[in-house]
Amino acid sequence: MPNLRNQSTDTLLYVNKVIDSFFSERIKEAELISPFYAQLWSDIARLIHAGGKRVRPKMTVLAYEAFGGKDSKVIYPVAASQEFLHLSLLIHDDIIDRDSVRYGVDNIAGAYEKNYYAHVEDSADRGHYAQSAALLAGDLLISSSYRLLSESRVAPELLSKVLAIHSQSIFEVAGGELIDTESAFRPLGSIDSHTVALYKTASYTFVAPLLIGATLAGVSQQTIQSLIVFANNLGTAYQLRDDVIGVFGDESQIGKTTIGDIREGKHTYLVEQFYALASTEEKVHFELYFGDQHVQKNEVESIKKLFVSTGALARVELAITHYADAAQEAARAFNVDDVYRAEFEQLVTAVTKRDK
Amino acid sequence: MPNLRNQSTDTLLYVNKVIDSFFSERIKEAELISPFYAQLWSDIARLIHAGGKRVRPKMTVLAYEAFGGKDSKVIYPVAASQEFLHLSLLIHDDIIDRDSVRYGVDNIAGAYEKNYYAHVEDSADRGHYAQSAALLAGDLLISSSYRLLSESRVAPELLSKVLAIHSQSIFEVAGGELIDTESAFRPLGSIDSHTVALYKTASYTFVAPLLIGATLAGVSQQTIQSLIVFANNLGTAYQLRDDVIGVFGDESQIGKTTIGDIREGKHTYLVEQFYALASTEEKVHFELYFGDQHVQKNEVESIKKLFVSTGALARVELAITHYADAAQEAARAFNVDDVYRAEFEQLVTAVTKRDK
Repeated sequence: MPNLRNQSTDTLLYVNKVIDSFFSERIKEAELISPFYAQLWSDIARLIHAGGKRVRPKMTVLAYEAFGGKDSKVIYPVAASQEFLHLSLLIHDDIIDRDSVRYGVDNIAGAYEKNYYAHVEDSADRGHYAQSAALLAGDLLISSSYRLLSESRVAPELLSKVLAIHSQSIFEVAGGELIDTESAFRPLGSIDSHTVALYKTASYTFVAPLLIGATLAGVSQQTIQSLIVFANNLGTAYQLRDDVIGVFGDESQIGKTTIGDIREGKHTYLVEQFYALASTEEKVHFELYFGDQHVQKNEVESIKKLFVSTGALARVELAITHYADAAQEAARAFNVDDVYRAEFEQLVTAVTKRDK
Repeated sequence: MPNLRNQSTDTLLYVNKVIDSFFSERIKEAELISPFYAQLWSDIARLIHAGGKRVRPKMTVLAYEAFGGKDSKVIYPVAASQEFLHLSLLIHDDIIDRDSVRYGVDNIAGAYEKNYYAHVEDSADRGHYAQSAALLAGDLLISSSYRLLSESRVAPELLSKVLAIHSQSIFEVAGGELIDTESAFRPLGSIDSHTVALYKTASYTFVAPLLIGATLAGVSQQTIQSLIVFANNLGTAYQLRDDVIGVFGDESQIGKTTIGDIREGKHTYLVEQFYALASTEEKVHFELYFGDQHVQKNEVESIKKLFVSTGALARVELAITHYADAAQEAARAFNVDDVYRAEFEQLVTAVTKRDK
């Protein structure tokens, strides 16, 4: 995704500064417990700097500034907390999806497989211990997201409001994640991809970060409502784009495998549209490989061709345009300076037209 | 553990009420996302009522009342938050230890194995999906522990202090858990069981719950320091007792297998003492079974005999007495009414003499 605004570089810089200083403190403290614990924190620090577009912190800062917030000392740590939540979800998501690469480098489990190589002979055991380290890393990041919020300079009377939004977003994303995972084996139709998009993605990527920023800027309840409409539409478009990239993207660009979604048999909107459009023969072909743990690259290629030839991909593109338009309409109603309205609009374009 | 005090039954009752009402709200909200998500919340609610001595909530209430706190509306939700953290750790711990039973019933992963039976044919896949549900359940409980704190009626200026103690305890317990897990395969001596006891157990079981209660009662920094000494000694004694019960306990009483620690090859203080005392021959015998994923009941019995015959068990009992005495000494210095001092002293006895 291209930079969203001039100040975007500043946001990135300051948020990364907060992250850096948080991790160097934790590594020092962990060292007092055990060098093995410091290793885990160093590995999390390595991963958070290996990639990530800081979309969620940018949302928090954008909403805060657009609606009149001025105190950068308050907002950057709050914004960084949203990146911690994101990374915790990625790390736990990778355990669930059995992936060992993230941002084009070893994720926590991947790094620990290597770390434990000399100590654990049995490869299944080693994998299990590596996943256990990743499990703890994700737990620590959830806690750290709350910690950054509660250590921030947010006024005491606003802190519990911000924490409530944060807790709600974790409640929603875990629900989205659960049903997304179960969609691999529940009957088609029992879990709707739109619900998954709203709860797994829109909620913690756009709704909560924007609402936290806006709340700290002191907006009205009406503005909160229009931000939710904006964020839900934007988030849905974002997830649909993600589903497309997850299958059709360039692996070297996106830093992870494009086999995963097919291998895990995720019932994305793309898959729903395929089922709505495909012939019986095409479905039989599809089900040969979809959800197969040992699916091969060339088999994935044949699935991709089916998504195109049936028109499923085109339908997803249409839906993305629909949700993007709805988000644009909501943004036009925001009571902000034109320069910020333009940013919200550019954001929609950036999110929906990206290829990584 | 026997009841600690007359009010202990009240604590149990009120804390369980908070827990009940929290879960019925979450189940209702989860239903709006998907019945599959409501299922997960129902399952967590089932598990939290299947057992648990509510030790940590009792600590919070005890410290609060002993040091002069009077507002029960404030303290019970705060106390319940400590049980949520505990359950999250148990659920994630069970993933790490590959256990499917807790409190004598199916844990989350165990229940989901059955839940998914009709939907996922491959048993390895089914196990993986069941663990994924358990992973999310633990994440939700970490977040819920913060949520209860931030929704509580704690005065705004105290909330960030309480959250800081809570975050610190999660930081410490994750470190303790990591090195405890790694102790199964790191060289003997590189991870010290005393450090594990302090961080894996004392920290979140005694230090944080007591400090949170005392902080809300408005104690001095000096009292905080003496509470830490008390809690660290008590917690260490508690963990040593746990190690003994984990191997020598009655499975029907403790609600989990007594094979686990031997199977996972945990380097507890008991094991450290065995190595300090055993002959080469005894060590060879020991290492035949210790850390063996397929260890049998009768082999575990022969290990237990070795712990007794070498005097390792007796050394652990001596250490428990030592830490219990140190905790008693700290309690004598507390500036509280005699009735509360007696409770702190009874607590030490209850914790160190228990058999489950």
